Amino acid sequence: MSDTPVEIYAIERLHEFCRRVFMHFGVPESDARQAADVLAASDLRGIDSHGVGRLKTYYDLLQRGRINPTPQVKVVRHTMSTATVDGDNGLGLVVGPKANRIALAKAEQSGSGWVSVFNTNHFGIAGYYVLEALENDVIGIAMTNTTSIVAPLWGNDRMLGTNPIAIAFPGKEEPPIVIDMATSAAAYGKIEIAQRMQETIPEGWAIDSDGRDTTNPDDMVEGGALLPLGWTRDLGGHKGYGLAAMVDILSCVLSGANWGPFAPPFALGQDMPERSVGKGIGHFFGALRIAGFIDPDEFKRQIDEWIRTFRATTPAPGTEGPLIPGDPEREAEKVRRVDGVPVLMPVVEAMRQIARETGIPLD
Amino acid sequence: MSDTPVEIYAIERLHEFCRRVFMHFGVPESDARQAADVLAASDLRGIDSHGVGRLKTYYDLLQRGRINPTPQVKVVRHTMSTATVDGDNGLGLVVGPKANRIALAKAEQSGSGWVSVFNTNHFGIAGYYVLEALENDVIGIAMTNTTSIVAPLWGNDRMLGTNPIAIAFPGKEEPPIVIDMATSAAAYGKIEIAQRMQETIPEGWAIDSDGRDTTNPDDMVEGGALLPLGWTRDLGGHKGYGLAAMVDILSCVLSGANWGPFAPPFALGQDMPERSVGKGIGHFFGALRIAGFIDPDEFKRQIDEWIRTFRATTPAPGTEGPLIPGDPEREAEKVRRVDGVPVLMPVVEAMRQIARETGIPLD
Repeated sequence: MSDTPVEIYAIERLHEFCRRVFMHFGVPESDARQAADVLAASDLRGIDSHGVGRLKTYYDLLQRGRINPTPQVKVVRHTMSTATVDGDNGLGLVVGPKANRIALAKAEQSGSGWVSVFNTNHFGIAGYYVLEALENDVIGIAMTNTTSIVAPLWGNDRMLGTNPIAIAFPGKEEPPIVIDMATSAAAYGKIEIAQRMQETIPEGWAIDSDGRDTTNPDDMVEGGALLPLGWTRDLGGHKGYGLAAMVDILSCVLSGANWGPFAPPFALGQDMPERSVGKGIGHFFGALRIAGFIDPDEFKRQIDEWIRTFRATTPAPGTEGPLIPGDPEREAEKVRRVDGVPVLMPVVEAMRQIARETGIPLD
Repeated sequence: MSDTPVEIYAIERLHEFCRRVFMHFGVPESDARQAADVLAASDLRGIDSHGVGRLKTYYDLLQRGRINPTPQVKVVRHTMSTATVDGDNGLGLVVGPKANRIALAKAEQSGSGWVSVFNTNHFGIAGYYVLEALENDVIGIAMTNTTSIVAPLWGNDRMLGTNPIAIAFPGKEEPPIVIDMATSAAAYGKIEIAQRMQETIPEGWAIDSDGRDTTNPDDMVEGGALLPLGWTRDLGGHKGYGLAAMVDILSCVLSGANWGPFAPPFALGQDMPERSVGKGIGHFFGALRIAGFIDPDEFKRQIDEWIRTFRATTPAPGTEGPLIPGDPEREAEKVRRVDGVPVLMPVVEAMRQIARETGIPLD
């Protein structure tokens, strides 16, 4: 992507713009700030597909009244360590952090907290939520279903979302281990990039509309599907499918949201599913208080050791050796905090259009 | 494997033999029965590598005094929904079920239960534990670390176990969804089978001792390593590595067991790690009471719908369409309960040797 035209924006400017766009639709200031925080975390961490690049979609949905700008997020069922939350069709960027904090509060009280959320919308990067947990000496877990675009192993239809899983573990002197991964072989954003650059994609990412492996990104976009992590049966495609199913059920069946192929699409213009089996999409948050298991200081010292041990692995030929999960995002954040965020021109155009339509200054 | 010589045993006979072998070493009868239950579940479900095929290893370890036949399993730290359990170096087949029941009891009381276990040994199939949870309308989760044999992405050394994850969801009229998967691309048992049959293995399962992809199972066994689910960076090898790391940390760092390359080997004759960073290996059990989130009857009806919807997916070319996770094991169990369990001849020989040495009748 180094030769792709971009414009550079300071993160503070992107944050301010997003916040004001949300407020334009009546989102309360604290919620708008929260939503902008989640998008900014994504842009800082180099996950360009989930940050300001999605503002136009949130904008469209708010404009059409498809998302409730002033949701009353409420717990509809609970135990000491679990809860089901109704997101009242709010922005996932607002509902997600509120539900995550319910999980954190339960962990503080009862050792752990587990919250399944229905009637919500896309919540940004799963990694945001687990980083928030870290600050409380809590191991955070976050999952969500997403627009259906992944075929199960041996299937030909779009039945599951890219359904990410995130979990993070704090170190003492070392930075945290942050795992944040789609359960598909590749993220949809990578297909879009290949399409824009007119490049092929690796075999194992996608099938065409007839269910055959393809290296042409157009084939996937035009009625094909992404493949689960693992690709073939031999290489473990049933495992990626199983993980996506787990995320789908914990986030949606457990809460009462739309699971599998019935997830409402994120963007306008995509077909609505033939029927609804719940409300909105679903998230699932977990929180494990470390002190409930072991002395947190001892835990963090061992995580430091874990990290140093894995960094010392003999490198495979032609590589510099294993990374620690979270390394690439942390590197991106270090650079982008100083040098600014490179924003792709189509995203810049979309922001300018929003600026014209709302009168909110961008440049 | 259909042309591999086997002998057929009724499951009751295998169970009886295993139970008596454990009792031979002073394992109390109820514990011996429990351990035999776990092994039998594996043989019934077609996971031949984890059932009676491992009895000889347990036998060797008990004989050398490497496993405590009469462990005092105890909770060393706890909150309302979490606990850390010391397995007292008992059989994992005994410690695992006890720790799992602590998680289930906490779920009954507090909505969920999460138990990390140290000072334990291999616990059989992860699927056993989540099936037990199902009977209580609880979503069970089970993980364990295992002997270090998997290389992290871009690494050349054996740093992680095949670290399985299991989770199960109950249906109402449909059978449950049971996910039980190693986080490596393939299980070590498949390498052993290929080696015995002098067959090649698919690219993507293993590397040789120089870290290069290999299709020769001997290369893996002689100093190579298994690869994480996802294989290459493009195909998501960092994701399989991340999942294995998650299992390692939840099972071991959180409890105080030996993580990563320091896991003590399961079999005699394998090198001991250069140092110890905890006690024994580690497990992690989770239990989510469904009624804490949603009416269990409604949940099960939706799971039925989920299963029927996924079974109706258009099949990919050359396939009969997607399976539901747990289908193959359930099919195996149906057949084996009636026709008996086919046991490979090397395993039969090992059982006969045990029978001779202990005087416990086999045939």
